[in-house]
Amino acid sequence: MDNLSPLKKTWRFRLNPKTNMGPDISIRGVRYMLMSKLNKTETRPMIPLGHGDPSAFPCFRTSQVAEDAIVDSIRSANFNGYGPSVGILPARRAVADYLSRDLPYKLSEDDIFLTVGCTQAIQTILTVVTNPKSNILLPKPGFPYYEAVAKSCHLDVRHFDLLPDKDWEVDLDAIEALADENTVAMVIINPGNPCGNIFTREHLEKVAKTAKKLGILVISDEVYDHLAFGKKPFVPMGTFGSITPVVTLGSISKRWIVPGWRLGWLAINDPNGTLKEHGIVDCIMGHLSISCDPSTIIQGAIPDILSKTKSDFFLKIINIIQESANICYEGLADVPGLICPSKPEGSMFVMVKLDLSVFEDIKDDLDFCLKLAKEESVIILPGITVGLKNWLRITFAIEPSALEDGIKRLKAFCERHSDKP
Amino acid sequence: MDNLSPLKKTWRFRLNPKTNMGPDISIRGVRYMLMSKLNKTETRPMIPLGHGDPSAFPCFRTSQVAEDAIVDSIRSANFNGYGPSVGILPARRAVADYLSRDLPYKLSEDDIFLTVGCTQAIQTILTVVTNPKSNILLPKPGFPYYEAVAKSCHLDVRHFDLLPDKDWEVDLDAIEALADENTVAMVIINPGNPCGNIFTREHLEKVAKTAKKLGILVISDEVYDHLAFGKKPFVPMGTFGSITPVVTLGSISKRWIVPGWRLGWLAINDPNGTLKEHGIVDCIMGHLSISCDPSTIIQGAIPDILSKTKSDFFLKIINIIQESANICYEGLADVPGLICPSKPEGSMFVMVKLDLSVFEDIKDDLDFCLKLAKEESVIILPGITVGLKNWLRITFAIEPSALEDGIKRLKAFCERHSDKP
Ligand SMILES: Cc1ncc(COP(=O)(O)O)c(C=O)c1O
Ligand SMILES: Cc1ncc(COP(=O)(O)O)c(C=O)c1O
Repeated sequence: MDNLSPLKKTWRFRLNPKTNMGPDISIRGVRYMLMSKLNKTETRPMIPLGHGDPSAFPCFRTSQVAEDAIVDSIRSANFNGYGPSVGILPARRAVADYLSRDLPYKLSEDDIFLTVGCTQAIQTILTVVTNPKSNILLPKPGFPYYEAVAKSCHLDVRHFDLLPDKDWEVDLDAIEALADENTVAMVIINPGNPCGNIFTREHLEKVAKTAKKLGILVISDEVYDHLAFGKKPFVPMGTFGSITPVVTLGSISKRWIVPGWRLGWLAINDPNGTLKEHGIVDCIMGHLSISCDPSTIIQGAIPDILSKTKSDFFLKIINIIQESANICYEGLADVPGLICPSKPEGSMFVMVKLDLSVFEDIKDDLDFCLKLAKEESVIILPGITVGLKNWLRITFAIEPSALEDGIKRLKAFCERHSDKP
Repeated sequence: MDNLSPLKKTWRFRLNPKTNMGPDISIRGVRYMLMSKLNKTETRPMIPLGHGDPSAFPCFRTSQVAEDAIVDSIRSANFNGYGPSVGILPARRAVADYLSRDLPYKLSEDDIFLTVGCTQAIQTILTVVTNPKSNILLPKPGFPYYEAVAKSCHLDVRHFDLLPDKDWEVDLDAIEALADENTVAMVIINPGNPCGNIFTREHLEKVAKTAKKLGILVISDEVYDHLAFGKKPFVPMGTFGSITPVVTLGSISKRWIVPGWRLGWLAINDPNGTLKEHGIVDCIMGHLSISCDPSTIIQGAIPDILSKTKSDFFLKIINIIQESANICYEGLADVPGLICPSKPEGSMFVMVKLDLSVFEDIKDDLDFCLKLAKEESVIILPGITVGLKNWLRITFAIEPSALEDGIKRLKAFCERHSDKP
């Protein structure tokens, strides 16, 4: 205290402990930390297998339709002003139509709330369900932003497992065992981050029935909607909205590969009107009325983006991701010390187990990722960040030739560090 | 309870009381309420004197430079990906340069945090200064979003007056009387919303000295920066950052008339480094790491928008607003029952006092605004919304001929309702 400026002594300011979070262990924080460890004398390009944003690769450039829609939105000068806090009507209607294509009933514009990416949709629904003592059930492994938001809302978290031996299905028995009278909701992520899995229609129906039995809300994060390239089709959880109310979260970030644009949504899938009846819809509006709004320039472009993007764009993207998933899965089969329990069928990721007994000098997953960044300029996310220690989350959604290079370097790294040459 | 669906009985969900806010008395909420009272058989156009968004009027179209910058940003495909939560570097640097032009020292990019409009900058700084028992000093009249955010953070609010007889200067004696050991900050808004005033350099220096004496942070909301058209020039509060640390909040919303774009900033004006030393900068980063980000498309355009917009655009806009301010002030002089304590010199608003004794059948400011909306299709904000009962906040920043029409209708209304014909 003594060697600080005299001002310090009279300064009344104290910090909000909620915002003073110490080391940043978010995906973004860990990625930046790993990137800071790259060897600066390395001449090979860095291979980013750490995050779900392939937008930097030319082959993943967004559709012409989406770019043109933004240009039209700007040039019209119709979208410069403040919009309503729930989003502008044509954009809400466009999202309702887009989601309704895959549902057995129709959503209306009143069921849709536009958000600043799927991220704000997560924030909104978690805030709305928070009450003293309430808890939420989150998947493990999962997407750590849920934990961060729950913490900042003082919402208790209980984790249920996703089962690696059952294609990463939800452990429904665990759900029943974990839930108590203070449990308000459960979250699923489908297509799965970080597991790269797709839930079957049958499994989703079981999720709905379990939630109904327990009287809890199903929050379905479908930010990777339609990014399915295996045998199972993508089925939205809202399909079962008449069994139990479902809140679906989504965005254009992944399917259109424009995560920087920050346009997402929260959709009420509840044909019986239970959520409205219970005032939840009013709470969502209350929360949004003092929260950030997505840019009206992007909102103005949403009707064209959602209705005019051609299937050939989606097909091209899916084909690249599928090719990359194959390269990744087949490549990993050859790498000592890495075990991949199932072939990825969706999203942009796969979870890989580390067999530490194979290595001579690797302490754990974080140590693995640090050394890999330093020695091979390959960035992979340690599993600890998504809730599974001594696993890795590998992103395969990058340009296929870069991925091949990355897997080669990963193999060289594992061979070099393994004690059985 | 009994006639509700069976689901209700087993439904565990309860509402977050913080999000269940009851009637929406925000500016946006009251405006929508007034608009719902418009007479549907009215053939004259509605005249919007209720909010600070002239973007719908062709004469207030944003600059070509700003539109082109967004188009270039989109067409480059360089700004589709996720950015850092503090904002992308070139945009932070551009804001630092833009603000430094008017300061006696230079800001660096590290002093700038990009936000989703000035709104998120308000949210961020209020969250960061919140602690159990802490309180903040807010101006009355003011901008009610501060009260809404403070309430949602559990930050206590104390109000100091702006003095109508002293060109709406801060009542500095009140500041000293109100502050106690739990006071962490005070807010000023300059150019003023809702008063249309500009603080002199001398007054700002006194504010800085008062804050230094009390050991509290000065938060200076300069979202209307450079919208000054009277005798006093706009002086940024950061000018006195070496007397006491200042956090400046701003955006492109007002000066470029693009409030829907949602790009703002929080700037640390603190050449002595006190805020950094006390960990406040880390807290700001901690908060932003789990908050919404502004669209990278807009961030990518910021360097061009801030550095290339020609002075003729700003001049044109200032001239229209000045003309409107004159029309408004001179027109109001003729209207029975309305008293305007000082001629507006900045921002887009003027505060007008209601002399209720003049009217036969007007109960209060809200009653006045409701009847005015219904009978004349003119929307004006009741003063109660900004903290002054029986005043009105009138926006003059609209197309001048529409404003003339609005003032005429306002006059007809007041004459019709006054008991001295
Ligand atoms: C499961 C999941 N949900 C939500 C998000 C955030 O999506 P957005 O970028 O649209 O905010 C991500 C981003 O990676 C994600 O993986
Ligand atoms: C005083 C004041 N601060 C902040 C804001 C919000 O600005 P933005 O639209 O950039 O979020 C406004 C908007 O009217 C305002 O009047």
